[in-house]
Amino acid sequence: MKICIINGPNLNLLGTRETEIYGSKGFETFYDDLKSEYSNIAFEYFQSNIEGEIIDHLQKEGFSADGILLNAAAYTHTSVGIADAIKSIDSPVIEIHISNTFSREEFRHKSFISPVAKGIIAGFGLDSYRLGVESIKALKDV
Amino acid sequence: MKICIINGPNLNLLGTRETEIYGSKGFETFYDDLKSEYSNIAFEYFQSNIEGEIIDHLQKEGFSADGILLNAAAYTHTSVGIADAIKSIDSPVIEIHISNTFSREEFRHKSFISPVAKGIIAGFGLDSYRLGVESIKALKDV
Amino acid sequence: MKICIINGPNLNLLGTRETEIYGSKGFETFYDDLKSEYSNIAFEYFQSNIEGEIIDHLQKEGFSADGILLNAAAYTHTSVGIADAIKSIDSPVIEIHISNTFSREEFRHKSFISPVAKGIIAGFGLDSYRLGVESIKALKDV
Amino acid sequence: MKICIINGPNLNLLGTRETEIYGSKGFETFYDDLKSEYSNIAFEYFQSNIEGEIIDHLQKEGFSADGILLNAAAYTHTSVGIADAIKSIDSPVIEIHISNTFSREEFRHKSFISPVAKGIIAGFGLDSYRLGVESIKALKDV
Amino acid sequence: MKICIINGPNLNLLGTRETEIYGSKGFETFYDDLKSEYSNIAFEYFQSNIEGEIIDHLQKEGFSADGILLNAAAYTHTSVGIADAIKSIDSPVIEIHISNTFSREEFRHKSFISPVAKGIIAGFGLDSYRLGVESIKALKDV
Amino acid sequence: MKICIINGPNLNLLGTRETEIYGSKGFETFYDDLKSEYSNIAFEYFQSNIEGEIIDHLQKEGFSADGILLNAAAYTHTSVGIADAIKSIDSPVIEIHISNTFSREEFRHKSFISPVAKGIIAGFGLDSYRLGVESIKALKDV
Amino acid sequence: MKICIINGPNLNLLGTRETEIYGSKGFETFYDDLKSEYSNIAFEYFQSNIEGEIIDHLQKEGFSADGILLNAAAYTHTSVGIADAIKSIDSPVIEIHISNTFSREEFRHKSFISPVAKGIIAGFGLDSYRLGVESIKALKDV
Amino acid sequence: MKICIINGPNLNLLGTRETEIYGSKGFETFYDDLKSEYSNIAFEYFQSNIEGEIIDHLQKEGFSADGILLNAAAYTHTSVGIADAIKSIDSPVIEIHISNTFSREEFRHKSFISPVAKGIIAGFGLDSYRLGVESIKALKDV
Amino acid sequence: MKICIINGPNLNLLGTRETEIYGSKGFETFYDDLKSEYSNIAFEYFQSNIEGEIIDHLQKEGFSADGILLNAAAYTHTSVGIADAIKSIDSPVIEIHISNTFSREEFRHKSFISPVAKGIIAGFGLDSYRLGVESIKALKDV
Amino acid sequence: MKICIINGPNLNLLGTRETEIYGSKGFETFYDDLKSEYSNIAFEYFQSNIEGEIIDHLQKEGFSADGILLNAAAYTHTSVGIADAIKSIDSPVIEIHISNTFSREEFRHKSFISPVAKGIIAGFGLDSYRLGVESIKALKDV
Amino acid sequence: MKICIINGPNLNLLGTRETEIYGSKGFETFYDDLKSEYSNIAFEYFQSNIEGEIIDHLQKEGFSADGILLNAAAYTHTSVGIADAIKSIDSPVIEIHISNTFSREEFRHKSFISPVAKGIIAGFGLDSYRLGVESIKALKDV
Amino acid sequence: MKICIINGPNLNLLGTRETEIYGSKGFETFYDDLKSEYSNIAFEYFQSNIEGEIIDHLQKEGFSADGILLNAAAYTHTSVGIADAIKSIDSPVIEIHISNTFSREEFRHKSFISPVAKGIIAGFGLDSYRLGVESIKALKDV
Repeated sequence: MKICIINGPNLNLLGTRETEIYGSKGFETFYDDLKSEYSNIAFEYFQSNIEGEIIDHLQKEGFSADGILLNAAAYTHTSVGIADAIKSIDSPVIEIHISNTFSREEFRHKSFISPVAKGIIAGFGLDSYRLGVESIKALKDV
Repeated sequence: MKICIINGPNLNLLGTRETEIYGSKGFETFYDDLKSEYSNIAFEYFQSNIEGEIIDHLQKEGFSADGILLNAAAYTHTSVGIADAIKSIDSPVIEIHISNTFSREEFRHKSFISPVAKGIIAGFGLDSYRLGVESIKALKDV
Repeated sequence: MKICIINGPNLNLLGTRETEIYGSKGFETFYDDLKSEYSNIAFEYFQSNIEGEIIDHLQKEGFSADGILLNAAAYTHTSVGIADAIKSIDSPVIEIHISNTFSREEFRHKSFISPVAKGIIAGFGLDSYRLGVESIKALKDV
Repeated sequence: MKICIINGPNLNLLGTRETEIYGSKGFETFYDDLKSEYSNIAFEYFQSNIEGEIIDHLQKEGFSADGILLNAAAYTHTSVGIADAIKSIDSPVIEIHISNTFSREEFRHKSFISPVAKGIIAGFGLDSYRLGVESIKALKDV
Repeated sequence: MKICIINGPNLNLLGTRETEIYGSKGFETFYDDLKSEYSNIAFEYFQSNIEGEIIDHLQKEGFSADGILLNAAAYTHTSVGIADAIKSIDSPVIEIHISNTFSREEFRHKSFISPVAKGIIAGFGLDSYRLGVESIKALKDV
Repeated sequence: MKICIINGPNLNLLGTRETEIYGSKGFETFYDDLKSEYSNIAFEYFQSNIEGEIIDHLQKEGFSADGILLNAAAYTHTSVGIADAIKSIDSPVIEIHISNTFSREEFRHKSFISPVAKGIIAGFGLDSYRLGVESIKALKDV
Repeated sequence: MKICIINGPNLNLLGTRETEIYGSKGFETFYDDLKSEYSNIAFEYFQSNIEGEIIDHLQKEGFSADGILLNAAAYTHTSVGIADAIKSIDSPVIEIHISNTFSREEFRHKSFISPVAKGIIAGFGLDSYRLGVESIKALKDV
Repeated sequence: MKICIINGPNLNLLGTRETEIYGSKGFETFYDDLKSEYSNIAFEYFQSNIEGEIIDHLQKEGFSADGILLNAAAYTHTSVGIADAIKSIDSPVIEIHISNTFSREEFRHKSFISPVAKGIIAGFGLDSYRLGVESIKALKDV
Repeated sequence: MKICIINGPNLNLLGTRETEIYGSKGFETFYDDLKSEYSNIAFEYFQSNIEGEIIDHLQKEGFSADGILLNAAAYTHTSVGIADAIKSIDSPVIEIHISNTFSREEFRHKSFISPVAKGIIAGFGLDSYRLGVESIKALKDV
Repeated sequence: MKICIINGPNLNLLGTRETEIYGSKGFETFYDDLKSEYSNIAFEYFQSNIEGEIIDHLQKEGFSADGILLNAAAYTHTSVGIADAIKSIDSPVIEIHISNTFSREEFRHKSFISPVAKGIIAGFGLDSYRLGVESIKALKDV
Repeated sequence: MKICIINGPNLNLLGTRETEIYGSKGFETFYDDLKSEYSNIAFEYFQSNIEGEIIDHLQKEGFSADGILLNAAAYTHTSVGIADAIKSIDSPVIEIHISNTFSREEFRHKSFISPVAKGIIAGFGLDSYRLGVESIKALKDV
Repeated sequence: MKICIINGPNLNLLGTRETEIYGSKGFETFYDDLKSEYSNIAFEYFQSNIEGEIIDHLQKEGFSADGILLNAAAYTHTSVGIADAIKSIDSPVIEIHISNTFSREEFRHKSFISPVAKGIIAGFGLDSYRLGVESIKALKDV
């Protein structure tokens, strides 16, 4: 079983940036724990600040991965192109957010990704990713 | 550990109503499975079609439960009162949706509950509730 | 043949309340006349000021009645829950209004019920209900 | 007793056009049945694709007819001029729609005619016209 | 002289809920003081989390009370039904708010009750109710 | 000197229609007075309920008349076509309204004609036309 | 007969300011001509850049003048206070604009004054004032 | 104890202006009564039609008065400057309205003052001022 | 092969009207060239300023023509009736514009015709019609 | 003669992606046919999922190509930067769409590119590109 | 060289008012420093809380000053009149703000002055004025 | 002292592109002059048409530069990602615009960057950058 995790812009600063919102744990530490916990799943990780590279990556992985956890960060609210890519591929995409985007600025309430995602998980800190893994496992069980 | 599940209007018809959206499995069957899977958790279940009774129940359980899974259904989009109740209580409330509300009618994209919920899980069918249980377990671990 | 009539909030005051809009005839008097005129139809009548009780009643009658005449009054303009209930049941629901809601305040122009109702009859005073009975009779003839 | 029926643009194609919405029965067949059913009423029928001709006809009949059944079709949503004509005449005008306009495109939810019509009947197929006849008969009884 | 006080959803938690907004004094303590201060006025008190029960109560008291102090809380911003009830009864209704709703979230700036209330008093903490009593006394003096 | 007066839909009913807004004097009587008062001006008069005929007439007169007084009535608020015609011709067009359209319904506040008219005169009853004649005389003097 | 002319902010620069919009003739020259043309009318003239002084002046003259020509300039689009003053006085107020405000910026299309003015004259250059005088003369003749 | 009353534009016409809304009692008569009723309070009164003078006065009194009753009238709906002044001073400001602004024109529903006022009292006629005095007395008791 | 060209309001003035936008070539000259270039296609041409006549013509030709080139001009932005006619007929309709409507006024950006047209060609001057002919030829080849 | 074709995000998946909207023919096959049909034109082709690379390419080709066919796909609706690039270069840019964007989601109706493009061709499948070539040939003939 | 500084409402309280936003330094102290730093520039300073007086002052100085630094404070967001004055005068006007208005309330994001100002400098505390002086010096060098 | 200058899309064409808006001086020439004028400051310059590369660069320089002058050009109006990057870094960012964006198209009035920038300087041509340098120098002095 293969799960792809894609992180969008500024998430490479996780653990240093706006820690009152995103927490102080870096993604790498968390990612190592995650791989340990789900040792029978093949994980693939990608981060980019460039919208089009995220589209490229969705196209590259989206026909073979069993599921994709996508935290598009800022592009969530502005990218029609990423949403179109999700519609173009086969793998189910789960929209992930670390913070509760609905308790933040108004412009973060709009998501181009939500209508085309399989499901949405938001607000649980880095644990949102783990719940995403759980959701893909359950999808495959059905 | 005690988890309270609250279902809003028309969810008592689950399994018979609009099965192309909500699936054909009744909530009772799912609920029995859930209790079996998490046998060391005390579950409490409540369903009502009346907005104010949901407020009553949030107030009743919201100072002792370790977490509340709330699928407010139609009231998600119209009830300031339920949102106020969530703010008034101590237990963390997870917003649950069976379907992906963002791929449905425009008026279902607005949630009064999201800004005051701890986190949001939507679109995974009945498995959204199980992911909710997982999220509360993780919250308690922190 | 069974027809169910459901009246929403404040319609219990009909005949006393805002008579320049709703007329001075109480619903009971009208209802007796209606039953006399259509003596071969079994009528069932329900009124409540509570949104959730209207949902309850729609669920209770909505799998056996040949048609439902629903004047949801104020809830017409705010209740997603009643609209969801209409979609969940089998009986055709006719939206009824005594007054012409479109010649009143702006917020009364929006109806959550119209898109899911079989048809709409508005503006004929209490005669709107009788036209509703006629419409259900014709639906059954088709 | 005289009742005037006015049909707006494209309704001359009824029975051939978009039959999944409007049904496959031509208006002429229905109209003959209607005249048979209400043999003591004098009917007058007019159809035009031209907004101003509908205004002309409302002015021509609107001071003598006992009631007018107006299905303005597309002009319902755009014509201030027809609405002004309705306000200028004496005969009560009933707004008629074959389909439930509220379950169709957003722009069909707005009606310039509703606020100045005596009443609205929509969604019952061609039977909407017959219910309109019934409503005018009742108006005259009051 | 009889004055009715009606409190809406979540106000039963007053004194414990969001004390930075609503203060830490329970309504009961305040209510006892109020009755002492105005010993020649007959007070009646009602609280409910259910919109329709507030409508029921307005109908029950609204033809005999000299005035009604209504703090509809969350329903202030969503309930057409309560507004319709106020229009249907005889007693003057004063809209009461403990906090200054206009310095809070945007959706609390809209009130369905304000246009049909006799007057509005907001922002004075629990003293808003006492000012409401004063206002009714003055209305009766005119 | 030649002045053309064009009246839009329903203005043929002037003097009988909504007299509380438009007054009880028919246009013909007024028109005779106007011709007497300005005997050295050649007047041309046209009325139609059909939008396209008003466009036709603007095109017909708009290259020779010294000025056009246009009361487009309902088409004022909806007709891009009449506005385009005004831009296409040479004669200056004065927008005329009998009533003060800004103290009436919201949809009458928007005029497609105003931005392309030479000037606007509204609210003076039938005297608006006479002021329009005065304005054209002054334009020619400059 | 007494007519009061009130000019709002920046109109004291007329003839020097934005001459492509307002023309190059100063108001004083025009005003002298106007007084000569209508020698049997007593004119009173006032200009201020201060909103409240315009309100003061409307109150001062508005109970004795036979008519007021008000070009509120920029305050047209923002002043509720001047509109309230117009409603508070007895003299009919004619809204005057030199330019066609509807062919300029969007924010100039909204007028707080129009709904409470007797009539509107716009777009005729300084001749708008003369037409205003004509309109008041006609009002007095009725 | 010192209370300052500030009245905005057109309130100097109280008792003569739009008496169906504001009543026929002049403010002076009411003010004398008020001073008699609260003889141990030092009142200060100011009225101006000029927005900036109201700002000047708020600044002048706002560091020494125990409370300010501000009826900004038309400026309520347009003045950011008065709102800024309220935020800049120390004295609590109570927003006062004679009429129920929410049952009047749409543009009167927006108040720049409400979010920065201590509290709001509206709709009780001139008695709104007396309730304001009561509210300030209570504030000082706390 | 038969292609029908329909031109809407004011396009009869082409070549004389607003030549900076529409060019100085009359449609007749262009039309002759077009017929020469595509001599094996039967062309039919119709122009009207009347919305309903365009609907009439679409109905008349729309069941036999191989394609229709429709430049509805001003009615593009306001006519639901023409859009309904296009949906009612069999022939594919190509929306044609001479100018680039999106670089002109805001109200020209909205087209009721676009959603129901087969395709859109805009901005190429009169060559837009020739491209339309090309598009229909290609449609027939598929 | 040189024509540049630029395709935006996800168009590299053409022929596999959402074939009910975009058809099942890959762009490469079509492109070969196009080059054969117009053998005397030098074509240049570029595709990228990255907004800024499209800007780069527009700048690179936009001073020498005789025309550019730009199908910006998702960036059509969000990219001010591509629109700015079009304004900065010399070559005429034709906006191309395979599908009729106006019959799809609301957010696809807005194009930042349309106002600055020479012309728009949409809805003809891959033939839209060929019509684009035709349009550039005609532009060069003028 | 002469530079005029104009400060709008409530800026006379600088140094005492909302010091967390505006800082605790009074304008006078800063102004003395500024004059020392630029001793070869003639400064003129004006502050008023009255909108019209700011217009008066712009007119008075705006034909001789080499540049005007205008911090219109609250009037920035509401005054069409000040914007009109800026257009009417010769001197370049630089819009100055002490705080970053875009990180404050929504209504402070709209400026009537920005579109007609030469340039905008905001967010640098009192140093914004000094940068304004620098900008005018550079304008004169060109 | 180190100052970083970042220019967004299409600014590499400065001096050739739309010279009526941006002037005819290339950025390189200006940049050389700037470095000469402030020889004791270390400048770093970066330009990219790719949104994500600008984010990359902000992250790279944003923890060591004393200040960043960011002219995000088109991305100013659409990029949440750049705004998020600014919030994530330590260096103060000054928003720079060559033209006065507020006197251009409506969509250029909205900036995602303004609310998170330290300050804004716009409209002074290339001198805006020099004023930005001045502003950073002053920030460091405090």
